[in-house]
Amino acid sequence: MRLTAMTDYSLRLLMHVGQHGGRLCTIAEIAQVYGISEAHLMKITHQLALAGFLETLRGRGGGMRLARPAAEIRIGDVVRAMEPDFAVVECFATGNVCTLSGQCRLTGVLHGSLAAFMENLDRYTLADILEPLPAALPLGAQPIVFKARGSHAK
Amino acid sequence: MRLTAMTDYSLRLLMHVGQHGGRLCTIAEIAQVYGISEAHLMKITHQLALAGFLETLRGRGGGMRLARPAAEIRIGDVVRAMEPDFAVVECFATGNVCTLSGQCRLTGVLHGSLAAFMENLDRYTLADILEPLPAALPLGAQPIVFKARGSHAK
Repeated sequence: MRLTAMTDYSLRLLMHVGQHGGRLCTIAEIAQVYGISEAHLMKITHQLALAGFLETLRGRGGGMRLARPAAEIRIGDVVRAMEPDFAVVECFATGNVCTLSGQCRLTGVLHGSLAAFMENLDRYTLADILEPLPAALPLGAQPIVFKARGSHAK
Repeated sequence: MRLTAMTDYSLRLLMHVGQHGGRLCTIAEIAQVYGISEAHLMKITHQLALAGFLETLRGRGGGMRLARPAAEIRIGDVVRAMEPDFAVVECFATGNVCTLSGQCRLTGVLHGSLAAFMENLDRYTLADILEPLPAALPLGAQPIVFKARGSHAK
C-alpha cells in the first residue's frame, strides 16, 4: 500500500522549496539534503513545473521556487499530478483480464477507500505541512528565521 | 498508489471461495479462473489459512473453504493480514534516512489518509462483495443462469 517514490520525492521537494520562501533552490541542493539523485529530481521538477506547482529559472543563479503560495497547493492535487495511476489493484489499470470484471463489487469498495484517502489529502495544503526551517538544515546557507507559528514556537 | 498483487489475489481468491458456499475449491480451479500461478496461490492460501480466513483440507477430494461466514470476514482485516507493510511513503518503512524525520508533518497527513482508506474497507465484509456466481465461471461446470441486472442485461 504505497505511493510511488516519485510522488514521495515530489512532496519532499515542495516542502523544501516551500520552507525556503522565495529563495531559488537548486536541484543540487535538494539532492544533497534528501539523498535523492539529481536525475530523479530533474524529472520531478519538470513534472511539478508542468503541473503548475513550481517556477523554474534557468542558468547561473537559477533554480526553482513555488509557482503559487504554499496555502494554494493542495497535497491531494500534488499526489494526483504525480501518481501514474490510481490502480489500487491490478484490475483498475488497463489490460485487466480478471473474470470478475464488470460484476465485481470489490472495485466499488476499493474506489470508495481511495476516495476517502484522497479526500483526507485534499484537506491539507503545502502550507499546513511546512515546518520552520530547522537549524541544522542545508548547505551551510545562512539560516533563515521564520516567524514562529502557534505551539511550535520555540 | 496500490496494494500488492498478493493482497489483490487474496481478495479475489476469497471472493471465489465465498461464492461457492461450502464446496471445497481447489488451487488448480482458482488458478484457471483468474489466470494466477498455482505457486502464488499456494502461498496466498497458506497465509489466508494462518490468518484464520480459510480452512484447508489436504489430499484427494481436498481443497479450501471459508473458515468463517463471509459476513464475519472484514475486507480491512484481509488487507491488514496480507499487506507486508503500510509504508505509503518510504519513510514509513524502516531504514528511513530523510532529514525531515521527526519534524515532518507530511507523515501525519499521510497516516490520516491511510486510516481513512482502512476505515472505509472496514465497513465491508466479504459477504458484501460476493456476487451471484456468473454464468461463464469455472471448470466447465453447468452454467447457472442469474437474473439480469439493470443496464448490464443483454
